[in-house]
Amino acid sequence: MKHDRILLAHGGGGTLTHELIEQLFAPAFGLKELEDSAVLDDKLAFTTDSYVVKPYFFPGGDIGKLAVCGTVNDLAMQGAEPLWLSLGMILEEGLPLADLEKIVASIKATAAEAGVTIVTGDTKVVERGKCEGLYLNTAGIGRVVADVGSTHVRPGDAVIVNGNLGEHGVAVLSRREGIAFQTSVISDCAPLWSLVQSALVSGAEIHAMRDPTRGGLAATVCDIAAASGVGIWLQESALPISAEVRGACDLLGLDPLNIANEGKVVVFCRGTDAGRVLDAMRAHPLGRGARVIGEVTEKPKGMAVLRTAIGGERIVDMPTGEDLPRIC
Amino acid sequence: MKHDRILLAHGGGGTLTHELIEQLFAPAFGLKELEDSAVLDDKLAFTTDSYVVKPYFFPGGDIGKLAVCGTVNDLAMQGAEPLWLSLGMILEEGLPLADLEKIVASIKATAAEAGVTIVTGDTKVVERGKCEGLYLNTAGIGRVVADVGSTHVRPGDAVIVNGNLGEHGVAVLSRREGIAFQTSVISDCAPLWSLVQSALVSGAEIHAMRDPTRGGLAATVCDIAAASGVGIWLQESALPISAEVRGACDLLGLDPLNIANEGKVVVFCRGTDAGRVLDAMRAHPLGRGARVIGEVTEKPKGMAVLRTAIGGERIVDMPTGEDLPRIC
Repeated sequence: MKHDRILLAHGGGGTLTHELIEQLFAPAFGLKELEDSAVLDDKLAFTTDSYVVKPYFFPGGDIGKLAVCGTVNDLAMQGAEPLWLSLGMILEEGLPLADLEKIVASIKATAAEAGVTIVTGDTKVVERGKCEGLYLNTAGIGRVVADVGSTHVRPGDAVIVNGNLGEHGVAVLSRREGIAFQTSVISDCAPLWSLVQSALVSGAEIHAMRDPTRGGLAATVCDIAAASGVGIWLQESALPISAEVRGACDLLGLDPLNIANEGKVVVFCRGTDAGRVLDAMRAHPLGRGARVIGEVTEKPKGMAVLRTAIGGERIVDMPTGEDLPRIC
Repeated sequence: MKHDRILLAHGGGGTLTHELIEQLFAPAFGLKELEDSAVLDDKLAFTTDSYVVKPYFFPGGDIGKLAVCGTVNDLAMQGAEPLWLSLGMILEEGLPLADLEKIVASIKATAAEAGVTIVTGDTKVVERGKCEGLYLNTAGIGRVVADVGSTHVRPGDAVIVNGNLGEHGVAVLSRREGIAFQTSVISDCAPLWSLVQSALVSGAEIHAMRDPTRGGLAATVCDIAAASGVGIWLQESALPISAEVRGACDLLGLDPLNIANEGKVVVFCRGTDAGRVLDAMRAHPLGRGARVIGEVTEKPKGMAVLRTAIGGERIVDMPTGEDLPRIC
């Protein structure tokens, strides 16, 4: 390992997070496929995420909504219908009860929207200053209904996304102390199973799905290219990025490709089935902005490339994870 | 709710924790039976716990060992064989990698001892000072093999515990900053499934099991008495408490009945089957100190009473949760 102490970037979803997982956690626990969910006995998927987003209320959502969406989306990406969630809460001494009540109400509403039940939980309290309001963890169990996976992507596949990129990250940053800009961007935070399900039942041959959260679209395409041993070509002019997100990124010196999303799915499907997926997604409220953003080829094996608007090409690098701490 | 801000006692496993669960979480999420694990579809049990123990290394264990034991024990108490764990980590910027490696090794060793597999995980990093080294969460899935539950206890049942009480709490406290005493007490932290299994297959009719963690034996007997609508009588002279734990409690003004254990199980079985349970437990390394500590009667309905060594009686109260923060 390159560092002898934990850095913020170890949690950023980029190269340092990968180093930690590949060099420490995966060997210790014998993890083989580094998907966000584990498949148990071919029928159940199991996943977990902790949530430390700062601030815990942000435009378009809060840590509770995020904690439901993030975990049900990890299941959905594995082709699993989300069924049950656990909820672990670490609360800071002094947290206003009114804030906790709002967050619990948000968890309840989002779970109902996502069709999952919170079946078990746990509460711990730490002294003032030893967390920031609250940290949450959800673990989720789902029923696997489709055979998809990061290693299943093939040359000829189309790359599709269901709408605008970068909105979650920009919305959270816009409310963070010390960040001196205002925008009306709202987090895209949403539970994606019903959208994913409509794509799955469209008859299209879907090979992989991934929610581009920490590390954004860049981390997603780098991961999938490496896992499937294919080249992924993104078309810059096709990437759906709003003027506001682009402006905020310019201001902050960030690349919109690296910014976290919480209501987006990147679908890799047989190229000739792209139309079916687009039709199915566009008929769903969360998929109206669905479009093809790239294609999969044999080469360059294990790499992602961006065809720029002016006709150039640039390698898409795995983000280091330093840009955006505490986004989820 | 009595308070408009979260207090440390809301996480102490006593009356304030119960208030939070019963008045806020249970109604919001429609939780019915307030067991530590949820039973899904009659075959699978599902549970979660977060771990914030301070300090993260303590005599007899560390936060990693605790995070495996706590969760597999919650499954075991539900009569479920622990199978799979998730692991969510919240790391503090600056955490020495050597400490993380030690904790990961401890998780690995304890999981192997407990017969479970860590199948999925997540890592977040927060800024320096925003947690204390690391907080962990594990969620666990187990296969239900016995029909036990807090509501199943009946008059005539025997109350059995597998060994000395109060060791985990005293061991953790002995290493906490500002606590001015030294002891050689070591945490009892251990995975209990194989012990529980040997009691279950002994042929004894076991009605309920509970690990007396936060809130100690007092919280356990208060909970079970209320859930089953029975009276529970503990015999003070039968309670296994070492001289060192008793001495430390006297020094700190604590009641050993309220102190957390992490390797103890309280078994409620048909009175005439107590011998079978004792024989099965005593044949197991974690059950050598097993003994009957009390009995269940019809009255006083929903209450626990201690028969003191000098022949008196005192009501066992649910601890408030104020005594011992950050014990697990």
